[in-house]
Amino acid sequence: MIVVMKQRATDEMVQLVASRIESMGLKAHVIVGTERTVIAAIGEKRNGEQETLSGLDEVDKVVPILAPYKVASRETKDEPTTVRALDLVLGGGHIGVIAGPCSVESEQQILESARAVQAAGATGLRGGAFKPRTSPYSFQGLKEEGLKLLAAAREETGLAVVTEVMTPEHVALVGAYADVLQIGARNMQNYHLLQAVGETDKPVLLKRGPSASIDEFLLAAEYILDQGNPHVVLCERGIRSFETHTRFTLPLATVPYLRERTHLPIVIDPSHGTGIASLVPTMAAAAVAADCDGLIIEVHPDPAEALSDGAQSLTPEQFNDTMTRCRSVAEAVGRTI
Amino acid sequence: MIVVMKQRATDEMVQLVASRIESMGLKAHVIVGTERTVIAAIGEKRNGEQETLSGLDEVDKVVPILAPYKVASRETKDEPTTVRALDLVLGGGHIGVIAGPCSVESEQQILESARAVQAAGATGLRGGAFKPRTSPYSFQGLKEEGLKLLAAAREETGLAVVTEVMTPEHVALVGAYADVLQIGARNMQNYHLLQAVGETDKPVLLKRGPSASIDEFLLAAEYILDQGNPHVVLCERGIRSFETHTRFTLPLATVPYLRERTHLPIVIDPSHGTGIASLVPTMAAAAVAADCDGLIIEVHPDPAEALSDGAQSLTPEQFNDTMTRCRSVAEAVGRTI
Amino acid sequence: MIVVMKQRATDEMVQLVASRIESMGLKAHVIVGTERTVIAAIGEKRNGEQETLSGLDEVDKVVPILAPYKVASRETKDEPTTVRALDLVLGGGHIGVIAGPCSVESEQQILESARAVQAAGATGLRGGAFKPRTSPYSFQGLKEEGLKLLAAAREETGLAVVTEVMTPEHVALVGAYADVLQIGARNMQNYHLLQAVGETDKPVLLKRGPSASIDEFLLAAEYILDQGNPHVVLCERGIRSFETHTRFTLPLATVPYLRERTHLPIVIDPSHGTGIASLVPTMAAAAVAADCDGLIIEVHPDPAEALSDGAQSLTPEQFNDTMTRCRSVAEAVGRTI
Amino acid sequence: MIVVMKQRATDEMVQLVASRIESMGLKAHVIVGTERTVIAAIGEKRNGEQETLSGLDEVDKVVPILAPYKVASRETKDEPTTVRALDLVLGGGHIGVIAGPCSVESEQQILESARAVQAAGATGLRGGAFKPRTSPYSFQGLKEEGLKLLAAAREETGLAVVTEVMTPEHVALVGAYADVLQIGARNMQNYHLLQAVGETDKPVLLKRGPSASIDEFLLAAEYILDQGNPHVVLCERGIRSFETHTRFTLPLATVPYLRERTHLPIVIDPSHGTGIASLVPTMAAAAVAADCDGLIIEVHPDPAEALSDGAQSLTPEQFNDTMTRCRSVAEAVGRTI
Repeated sequence: MIVVMKQRATDEMVQLVASRIESMGLKAHVIVGTERTVIAAIGEKRNGEQETLSGLDEVDKVVPILAPYKVASRETKDEPTTVRALDLVLGGGHIGVIAGPCSVESEQQILESARAVQAAGATGLRGGAFKPRTSPYSFQGLKEEGLKLLAAAREETGLAVVTEVMTPEHVALVGAYADVLQIGARNMQNYHLLQAVGETDKPVLLKRGPSASIDEFLLAAEYILDQGNPHVVLCERGIRSFETHTRFTLPLATVPYLRERTHLPIVIDPSHGTGIASLVPTMAAAAVAADCDGLIIEVHPDPAEALSDGAQSLTPEQFNDTMTRCRSVAEAVGRTI
Repeated sequence: MIVVMKQRATDEMVQLVASRIESMGLKAHVIVGTERTVIAAIGEKRNGEQETLSGLDEVDKVVPILAPYKVASRETKDEPTTVRALDLVLGGGHIGVIAGPCSVESEQQILESARAVQAAGATGLRGGAFKPRTSPYSFQGLKEEGLKLLAAAREETGLAVVTEVMTPEHVALVGAYADVLQIGARNMQNYHLLQAVGETDKPVLLKRGPSASIDEFLLAAEYILDQGNPHVVLCERGIRSFETHTRFTLPLATVPYLRERTHLPIVIDPSHGTGIASLVPTMAAAAVAADCDGLIIEVHPDPAEALSDGAQSLTPEQFNDTMTRCRSVAEAVGRTI
Repeated sequence: MIVVMKQRATDEMVQLVASRIESMGLKAHVIVGTERTVIAAIGEKRNGEQETLSGLDEVDKVVPILAPYKVASRETKDEPTTVRALDLVLGGGHIGVIAGPCSVESEQQILESARAVQAAGATGLRGGAFKPRTSPYSFQGLKEEGLKLLAAAREETGLAVVTEVMTPEHVALVGAYADVLQIGARNMQNYHLLQAVGETDKPVLLKRGPSASIDEFLLAAEYILDQGNPHVVLCERGIRSFETHTRFTLPLATVPYLRERTHLPIVIDPSHGTGIASLVPTMAAAAVAADCDGLIIEVHPDPAEALSDGAQSLTPEQFNDTMTRCRSVAEAVGRTI
Repeated sequence: MIVVMKQRATDEMVQLVASRIESMGLKAHVIVGTERTVIAAIGEKRNGEQETLSGLDEVDKVVPILAPYKVASRETKDEPTTVRALDLVLGGGHIGVIAGPCSVESEQQILESARAVQAAGATGLRGGAFKPRTSPYSFQGLKEEGLKLLAAAREETGLAVVTEVMTPEHVALVGAYADVLQIGARNMQNYHLLQAVGETDKPVLLKRGPSASIDEFLLAAEYILDQGNPHVVLCERGIRSFETHTRFTLPLATVPYLRERTHLPIVIDPSHGTGIASLVPTMAAAAVAADCDGLIIEVHPDPAEALSDGAQSLTPEQFNDTMTRCRSVAEAVGRTI
């Protein structure tokens, strides 16, 4: 890392900081500039040296050179990772599509959803059984009953079940029914939960927190990878910006940017990313053109009757049109869907 | 709530939506404007009607009239709540000060910290035993050993111990040592954790998530209150904005704004709110002038040696000066500290 | 508009506010809810009534029903507007591509750029002669000399010249050379400048300010339209969010969202939107899949030698590949480029 | 500056970049790390070298060491600058207060405002004659007539007139009446305007743009200073963040942060910073506790009748109370007001 000294730092102070760096097992290389002195610390590690040095009085700032994540990095593994669950394939030139309702509401609703999204070409079925809701007064999901209904829908359609787990003690229960464990955006930095799913061998769909930087996102993935589970899928679902006309701001540049840094597959969620059903079809197609490895889209047999997220759910017919558009674009950019 | 129809909505569509509203047990009141029709839904509740209606095709938008939280609201309880733990008093015209290191690192470090902050006038001792760290490679805290050291520091000084709990299964353990349970910003929407601390009768210091709206913040408090624990303290610790020169952006207007809406005490964390030790003294004083009920400040016997957050930690001497400044300002605005 | 009274508002207060509304020439319609009273003000205009009412003590908030812009709205003119300048066509199912260097640097540089982008399929040539630069010490453009070089490049290639005008007194000068006047993001709310270009009959490319809401963006367009110039093109070039890994955050959902509200053509600038050349090709293709009417892309014969924006400029070869990708995607979504 | 090479950069590439640096008249110092190579460029200037180098293919990123501004920097002039206009004194331990209506509306309104704010202790009078309004349909100010009314109010009260100038060609006109020229937030990067006020010798109150970084803010000041006008006052008036409960987010940490970097006086605008009159008194006091050099506050004889910004204007009585609170806090922190 590079340690930039304050302008008024004396030679003695520079020497003090250099010694401090050496005491961390790094090599200090002092460079005297015309207005400032900087010290290059060679042999950079990733356990808090930066933080410590930036706390020193004589130091103006510390600039890290290395990315803080390791296992997720393309510098560690350049070859792209493909994650599979039943027929759902994310990565390796193939775009996997996960679709279904926000919440599992009833047997009929989930079965109808599953059939519709499968007919349109999805290979994964989404549906929340344990629902993180902003208000304690909102519908909180059918819980284990919901998981059973998801399993029944898989039984009939063969779709891989993708569903959220909210707390470490539910990992075993949800894992008994799900094919892919979803970590919601609110839990992206719930480290005990990340470690708990990291101890399983189930694929994990990790959603980016709405104010997480890319480094924080990859470090959250690193918590899972570090426990030995390599099947991590990154999901961009929109960030919180000053924009209020959409529910979140969906930055598709995340896809090519992550691609340059990580081998993990990247999925886009245009439903939460916009919060408005009429914007989903174009944004799904745009995500495909941006080279994503998968899509996760909310579809409900009757959005107006949905117990949650009705405003951003597509009807089966709209989803079918969206798939048609996405398939054309995928073909145009040399990918399959 | 107010349902705004799309411009092109026909009378028939308006009737359909009105019926839908009536079917929810609300009264629909149609108002035909010169360019748009709106429907007032009277008898508004808080279980998702808004979401459902905003998903209807003919509807442009739905505007809620009521705040989504109840128990936290001054409309429910106008009298300010005071939260106490040993000699730490937050609210009721008194500003309680919680200070100490980011993490508990050793017996000597925490005892020295406790003595110093007590001497300067703090009545609460902060210190992390279970540490949520962005990177899995950073120091994760001394865990139960850290809790024991905090208890020893309380034994000696009488300071109330404020420490973070990260996951529901640790609530009993942390609660056995702590006087105040802290919920970190990353866990503000970890609902199982909120419910778990809501089931205790310990005071809870709930930190605002860096991208949480005020409504989301109060709804998180509502999760705790709804379980029967009324001892909730709200803590503003900075939001994530485009600013990068400070670690977070600290919006002190949160204090008077929350004051108008909730009876719960409001604490400011100028350490995380700025991330830079030299900005903490003025921002602490500003928080007092903004009428906060408490402060939580990072103090370390030797910030340059801190295992975490060194850059934002005050030395005991700087903390002492900060207390002096805050005390003068408190007096100037008619409060005690 | 809807005026929401404070909870404690008495009947008398409600009557006062209602009278105030009537005194504005609107009809007040009082609706008594179970917890709050609201007043619908019928006949809403757009000259500040909302602001005035929201300042009243008894009023909790005022919710506008109508969009604040008129001429730009699809409610005024549903048919999409196509803007043309020489062979550059933006809108009507056709995607116009404007490309070229950030700044005009020399005759050779601009001619080489013009030839290269034309060969790849662009019909507009961008290039700054008057450059708004963050620092007074940076290269400020060749000024009128730059305009002459742009005109020379048009002479040879037939490309429409798109260049920025920074201040009202330059409108005539820049207009004498340019085919399209560009208003930069920093000047989106420079109202005298908007009015000055509104008085010409030149097409105007209006860039969204990095923190402008969609309403503010359309109101800026309204300033131009209101002067009688209907040839306005809206350009999304990225917003300022907490993200720092890209120069700005490029929200492509702007395209379908604007499409629902305005008849004006919508152009995307993936160069400023990302600030990183390697992200431009995918984001350009994504913009096409999101149904934009045009692209504006920075291309430089030798980005490493560029006097400005080198990091986000494509080489001619990269631009050619980008056009190939965009053309395939355009075809896939039924558009021409 | 520090140039960080990509991981895969060969020795040859490193040499190429080093030569490039040398060709800019800088000294290149290559440091080979364990995972990366970095090059320190010594003799850093501020004219775009960073931008150019960051565009090179082999380069991962470029980290500037020096601040991009010079004249505004405390490294150039450590002694704080005091700006004066009549009895208005900003800086040097004194807090100057500028107050008055958003817009000048009538002779009676501005005279009444002037008398009231003077009585409460203000020494500057604000009031817009040329008003930048988001919508072309809103009240645009009384223009020259407004300037005359401001001058009349000064005549009677002796208050220094602070009013906005929106475009270069109005600088002479506004300057003929005003004591302090205000540059509005929307025009912070209107460089021709900055240069035009820089050519005068009038004090300039420069408002921070709502999405401007601190460096951009200081560089805007630098445009004025660079023309030879040293009387620049920086005004923080709130940034655009995701928060919508206040009009803007007011980051008071701007005050101590700027203080460490610049000698220019720093004023806070709690009226625009919050947009809600009831939050202004506490935030004004907080700004004083944060060590600001001045306040600018909207006061209107009858906010409910204001033609603009009524919701954030104080009544004369509320302003008087605010001044009392601020005076106590100023005294507590050793300043005068």
